Amino acid sequence: MSAQPKFRFLLINAFSLEPGSGFQMRAFSGPKEEQMHNYADVAPFLADVDWDLHPGARSTHGNWPVETKFEFMSVGINRLPLVREACESGKYNAIVLLGGGDPGYLEAREIGRSFGIPVTTCAHAQMHMAGLLGHKFSIIDISETHNMQMYNLVLQYRMADRCASIRNVNFPLPKPQYSDERPIQVERDRALRGEPSAMLDAAVEEAVSAIEEDGADVLMIGCSAAFWLQPLLQKRLREMGWDVPVLEGYRCAIEAAKTLVSLGVDASGLAIPLGRPSRWRRKKVF
Amino acid sequence: MSAQPKFRFLLINAFSLEPGSGFQMRAFSGPKEEQMHNYADVAPFLADVDWDLHPGARSTHGNWPVETKFEFMSVGINRLPLVREACESGKYNAIVLLGGGDPGYLEAREIGRSFGIPVTTCAHAQMHMAGLLGHKFSIIDISETHNMQMYNLVLQYRMADRCASIRNVNFPLPKPQYSDERPIQVERDRALRGEPSAMLDAAVEEAVSAIEEDGADVLMIGCSAAFWLQPLLQKRLREMGWDVPVLEGYRCAIEAAKTLVSLGVDASGLAIPLGRPSRWRRKKVF
Amino acid sequence: MSAQPKFRFLLINAFSLEPGSGFQMRAFSGPKEEQMHNYADVAPFLADVDWDLHPGARSTHGNWPVETKFEFMSVGINRLPLVREACESGKYNAIVLLGGGDPGYLEAREIGRSFGIPVTTCAHAQMHMAGLLGHKFSIIDISETHNMQMYNLVLQYRMADRCASIRNVNFPLPKPQYSDERPIQVERDRALRGEPSAMLDAAVEEAVSAIEEDGADVLMIGCSAAFWLQPLLQKRLREMGWDVPVLEGYRCAIEAAKTLVSLGVDASGLAIPLGRPSRWRRKKVF
Amino acid sequence: MSAQPKFRFLLINAFSLEPGSGFQMRAFSGPKEEQMHNYADVAPFLADVDWDLHPGARSTHGNWPVETKFEFMSVGINRLPLVREACESGKYNAIVLLGGGDPGYLEAREIGRSFGIPVTTCAHAQMHMAGLLGHKFSIIDISETHNMQMYNLVLQYRMADRCASIRNVNFPLPKPQYSDERPIQVERDRALRGEPSAMLDAAVEEAVSAIEEDGADVLMIGCSAAFWLQPLLQKRLREMGWDVPVLEGYRCAIEAAKTLVSLGVDASGLAIPLGRPSRWRRKKVF
Amino acid sequence: MSAQPKFRFLLINAFSLEPGSGFQMRAFSGPKEEQMHNYADVAPFLADVDWDLHPGARSTHGNWPVETKFEFMSVGINRLPLVREACESGKYNAIVLLGGGDPGYLEAREIGRSFGIPVTTCAHAQMHMAGLLGHKFSIIDISETHNMQMYNLVLQYRMADRCASIRNVNFPLPKPQYSDERPIQVERDRALRGEPSAMLDAAVEEAVSAIEEDGADVLMIGCSAAFWLQPLLQKRLREMGWDVPVLEGYRCAIEAAKTLVSLGVDASGLAIPLGRPSRWRRKKVF
Amino acid sequence: MSAQPKFRFLLINAFSLEPGSGFQMRAFSGPKEEQMHNYADVAPFLADVDWDLHPGARSTHGNWPVETKFEFMSVGINRLPLVREACESGKYNAIVLLGGGDPGYLEAREIGRSFGIPVTTCAHAQMHMAGLLGHKFSIIDISETHNMQMYNLVLQYRMADRCASIRNVNFPLPKPQYSDERPIQVERDRALRGEPSAMLDAAVEEAVSAIEEDGADVLMIGCSAAFWLQPLLQKRLREMGWDVPVLEGYRCAIEAAKTLVSLGVDASGLAIPLGRPSRWRRKKVF
Repeated sequence: MSAQPKFRFLLINAFSLEPGSGFQMRAFSGPKEEQMHNYADVAPFLADVDWDLHPGARSTHGNWPVETKFEFMSVGINRLPLVREACESGKYNAIVLLGGGDPGYLEAREIGRSFGIPVTTCAHAQMHMAGLLGHKFSIIDISETHNMQMYNLVLQYRMADRCASIRNVNFPLPKPQYSDERPIQVERDRALRGEPSAMLDAAVEEAVSAIEEDGADVLMIGCSAAFWLQPLLQKRLREMGWDVPVLEGYRCAIEAAKTLVSLGVDASGLAIPLGRPSRWRRKKVF
Repeated sequence: MSAQPKFRFLLINAFSLEPGSGFQMRAFSGPKEEQMHNYADVAPFLADVDWDLHPGARSTHGNWPVETKFEFMSVGINRLPLVREACESGKYNAIVLLGGGDPGYLEAREIGRSFGIPVTTCAHAQMHMAGLLGHKFSIIDISETHNMQMYNLVLQYRMADRCASIRNVNFPLPKPQYSDERPIQVERDRALRGEPSAMLDAAVEEAVSAIEEDGADVLMIGCSAAFWLQPLLQKRLREMGWDVPVLEGYRCAIEAAKTLVSLGVDASGLAIPLGRPSRWRRKKVF
Repeated sequence: MSAQPKFRFLLINAFSLEPGSGFQMRAFSGPKEEQMHNYADVAPFLADVDWDLHPGARSTHGNWPVETKFEFMSVGINRLPLVREACESGKYNAIVLLGGGDPGYLEAREIGRSFGIPVTTCAHAQMHMAGLLGHKFSIIDISETHNMQMYNLVLQYRMADRCASIRNVNFPLPKPQYSDERPIQVERDRALRGEPSAMLDAAVEEAVSAIEEDGADVLMIGCSAAFWLQPLLQKRLREMGWDVPVLEGYRCAIEAAKTLVSLGVDASGLAIPLGRPSRWRRKKVF
Repeated sequence: MSAQPKFRFLLINAFSLEPGSGFQMRAFSGPKEEQMHNYADVAPFLADVDWDLHPGARSTHGNWPVETKFEFMSVGINRLPLVREACESGKYNAIVLLGGGDPGYLEAREIGRSFGIPVTTCAHAQMHMAGLLGHKFSIIDISETHNMQMYNLVLQYRMADRCASIRNVNFPLPKPQYSDERPIQVERDRALRGEPSAMLDAAVEEAVSAIEEDGADVLMIGCSAAFWLQPLLQKRLREMGWDVPVLEGYRCAIEAAKTLVSLGVDASGLAIPLGRPSRWRRKKVF
Repeated sequence: MSAQPKFRFLLINAFSLEPGSGFQMRAFSGPKEEQMHNYADVAPFLADVDWDLHPGARSTHGNWPVETKFEFMSVGINRLPLVREACESGKYNAIVLLGGGDPGYLEAREIGRSFGIPVTTCAHAQMHMAGLLGHKFSIIDISETHNMQMYNLVLQYRMADRCASIRNVNFPLPKPQYSDERPIQVERDRALRGEPSAMLDAAVEEAVSAIEEDGADVLMIGCSAAFWLQPLLQKRLREMGWDVPVLEGYRCAIEAAKTLVSLGVDASGLAIPLGRPSRWRRKKVF
Repeated sequence: MSAQPKFRFLLINAFSLEPGSGFQMRAFSGPKEEQMHNYADVAPFLADVDWDLHPGARSTHGNWPVETKFEFMSVGINRLPLVREACESGKYNAIVLLGGGDPGYLEAREIGRSFGIPVTTCAHAQMHMAGLLGHKFSIIDISETHNMQMYNLVLQYRMADRCASIRNVNFPLPKPQYSDERPIQVERDRALRGEPSAMLDAAVEEAVSAIEEDGADVLMIGCSAAFWLQPLLQKRLREMGWDVPVLEGYRCAIEAAKTLVSLGVDASGLAIPLGRPSRWRRKKVF
């Protein structure tokens, strides 16, 4: 353990696009720090980690980001070989899947399990952190289609009782067939410069409604293209007098990975069985 | 309506294998009736349907049937182009996805929605039929890994409150790396000939335990490779004095497709939104 | 089976009234088509059915329609002999109980079970269809008392988790002791003529609130005296850009009956036991 | 209040039978004390009550006690006129419906509400008392059909989360078409004499299973024909070392009536609305 | 029973303060009637009780009333010796803990159990009474910190499914470090004199929102310092046309104590085990 | 950050006893490592932490360990001043409460919040870690009274849906009034030496029943006096072929503290409000 760092993580982006996609929120090649949304926010969390980053498999669904069920499935399966290679390489003791809608997460955990390597990701980790902090979380998210991906995750992770609501700021991701009047990266850049941003304003408005109407006492963010909102939304809410934590996916996924590595666990072999386990159960209940 | 039959369905198998797979429960080419498990059981349900059958996309995960999460995702995405082509062809007014673990179902419904064509499948349809008949269903299923696929479906479909249990007969599907002492097709053939079958016996035993211990009042079957159990299990239970319906996937999926076609609906556009809907909701709740 | 049509249904209205009741939405005698609310909407669903209609037992609670618990119980028990006679006649292979609040449904199913004949009805069938289409349904309904009948049905059918809300348009049914400023049939006739109808407007308003505030992604209608709303409400919502299915009771109950007949099931004998069953369970759980 | 006793109750039996019914557990005429199951157990609870007893409307479903859904509905509606008369008489400030399966309870409460008079009954009251004492109750009950009546009540009263199980001792009520090898009254008389009773033994066995397997920490009794079990079952469990309260219906229903009279409430007018209330709600939620 | 009154209760206030606390809603010494909030409202409920009142242990957390978790724990443990002494005295057959947030209730029941003496308290009793009357209750309460005490009680008592909401009128209790612009006792005195009270107005407003938006059909009151609201809020709601019961803690706790004494039970020994019970269970489930 | 270590924790034992207590599982004074149960198991988790340990406030409930509700409340309030002092000292950035039944946890978090310092503890942390790993956890615990403390925690933390069961090995803690035939420390020492231990055997048996009967796929341990079971139980289950993670409290609580410190959060200010927050909510929902 002295020779090796305690945490050796591979971070895998959800996908990479070719130039000209209209989605210019991060680089898809070059230094790893530039390929990650909002690296400055995440850097302290990687200070004690020996980490690599994979830009994500090149998208095959089209040269645009991910919102529909098909697109999520497509980028999900595309990165599974990366997960397998990373596990086989022996270089990593955890895999962190970047991306807000958790594409391929359950399948990647299954691969990780066969190597005893934990795999974490953004929505799953945020929902569990939220439970440590309060009673109910709301998800601040970007669009109708992306919302319903988050909805399905909440059901799949059995979090419906803990999810106060999914709140929609309605800033969808770019697609060729739609004109893009309010690109997220423009909103982000404005907001980061301290200029007015309709997207940040919408996030504040929806967060307050989530608190006042839906019963949320923790906030998390859905799409990773909106993770830049976290410090700004946290600040705005605090200035308004709302004492409520705002979570974000990358940091939560990295911290969850550290915890699992430390505890020496990845996932229950009963929840994610492999092949033909030596022991089997006659029944499963809910 | 006089010119065209009321029901024009394409049935799509979950996958097709190359010869030599060790999984010989149905043909992967030839007459459509031979490519379907237990055609005789299903034939009356297709009597008023103008139907085609697709053998399923050739598997890319390996030349064996499907049990793991990765395998389910793989065959799921592989058949989405078939769904799209079928919708585009204009020949069908519903798509019925064969296969017990519902690979690619949510994504296929998304495609169907963009054409206004309903898509149904085996586990989803059985769970909803079960609700019409009783309070709680149990799933008779084949192996640990397949059980957990069913488990995830129960959560995804929000059926945990209605699912009494998943019961495991422990007859896993063949894989090259495992010797196969109790192949399902041998069990089926024995049982159909009226000879003793350990798999049928196990199904009876687990069904009775589901009734007596778990509170099930309806039974359904998980893996389509076990759908042949339905009439035999129903008969055995009836002979024992248990007055409990046993469902099966193909018939339920076909009937669900008929209902949706008749009602002129496919799926809620709020549950499965497409692109950028003209109306959006500020919040979603559970 | 060649000699007989596949579907031989008796449709039984909830009750019939004497002339002068102030409830003039359908005939209580004469051709069967005129005794059914909105026959034109339902006709295509009966095209492949050999059907009879019973006008409903003459009401004994008073000469007005049904809203209170007592009234529902009264018309419920009054039509049970009709169900029994129909089963005994050997003419029908399913009974469809018309009426939105499902009077006598559980008891009628018990009778049907003893003949192996499925019985379906409007609220139960709509709730199950809604599950096939989306995550949560709301019920558009007519009055406080009728709402609470629907409320009790939602609990009895264990649908509370799937019911987003019951929405009240507040157009109560006529009763002698109340002056009737806004009779439903006047609203219906106006709406069908394309003239403004306060009741249709209220239904649109409540439907939109159900979608935007309560989380509904499917709508169904409570009282059968409001089933005429279905095509109009569906159209209005579609014109507003809401892509949400609106269900109605008669069609759903008829389709549910077809499904049960096709599958050869009626109800679980464990959920609705008869007399002294040969097998009994030591425990029942929820 | 000085002139009148604080509690003026009418107790109404579920039904009365003609001689020769084979159900000889209580008188159907004569002194009120003899018309009540196990009067000695209940007497102290009536000591501060000015009470009358109605033998129950003469049964119209047949000359046997009540187990099926139809029978419950029949005796339920038959006693509603008695409830109305009692309310109109001005003699009573509460009505206590005797009988374990609560026939006509919701409808009777509706009548009671219109007079501001509380109505209580045996299963409902027991379930609420159980909540005051522990986390989960099990119901010791007599037969498959009666069990499912209790099951429906648990759902209707929204008690599924608090009901650990319904446990069946399988001593069905007499019916002409069944020979009656183990009549309940014989079991009762044996048990009261201190002789061995298979029914009491079964109740002990099921109670212990409810505690050990189902998680019950309070027990209640389903059918009023089994209420005699209460002191004996309580004693047997105590002797075995089980420190668990066993409830019974008459005492709980009487105590619930006292509480409601004291508090000056009967039922929420929003849960059980009458006619056309001056205030109405746009929505109801669960 | 002739020698002793049936009900012999000790009522124990949550705490007593030294003079100068700024909390002047009741006396902390002198005649028992003056040491109880709103004695006139409660007097009829004590008419058939032989009762004593303890002013409450002198507070050790500070000379102000109770809102934080620490303060609740502090006054909770401080009154446990009083409970034990009362049980040991042999003078009482029930203990009624006054105070809206139920400090020390579970621990006091444990003590009571070891003497076979029931202990009741205000929030627990109100929640159970609410269940007798309707489907869902809302709690009208005074401040953020007190609300969250109520929130924790709802979870602890497993009432989340039955609690529509906790509604905050935002009239916090006095503390030295806060100026107190709207003392509750001033509001109370104004309201009792028939003058306008902002606190009563807020309670009406929140009660109506609870009914119209949250689905409440019964109302209860959180903090005992707001129990005076009950008759006034009930009257205001009735005048507005809302037919909804408003409960209050003292009366409910006293009535619950009477019921438990009459039934001869205190609490389930499985829910609140003592020492080393003779029988133990291998498992507990929820 | 260079000057100070990242993690500066105070670990506070639940209580300390005087010599002669009969509870000899750890020292109550001396080197911090000896005052902690099973230090060797925990040491690696403290390797990157600058930590102190407090032996726990001297017990005032008696000179024995903690099982009853009163005892839990007593040691809970006794350690609150230690939490406050630790926060005020400025020396720590997190407090870890040792002890399996979480005495004083909610109150300690309230104190921590007022300093912005997270507080973690053993049951709460284990339950949340369990959620990261599987669907349902069971708690292996020591006795009836301690089980019900865990039961209350599960309800308070809203984990009932995720808790498969609490399983009782029935090795209660010592008390003066009971002879102690099977002291836990004897069992521990035997087991650690590789000799047969009835307590370890019971833990294995209950763990297997939790897996096979209750649906657990993760195991955690209740009482801290049983935390020594973790590595041994994990090993035994693995040898039997059960691929299921076994958690333990100290490690989980330490890891949870690291995560919260890293994320810069302690608890939601809406869930645990302090004094009079600048923003308040009109309603809270569940």
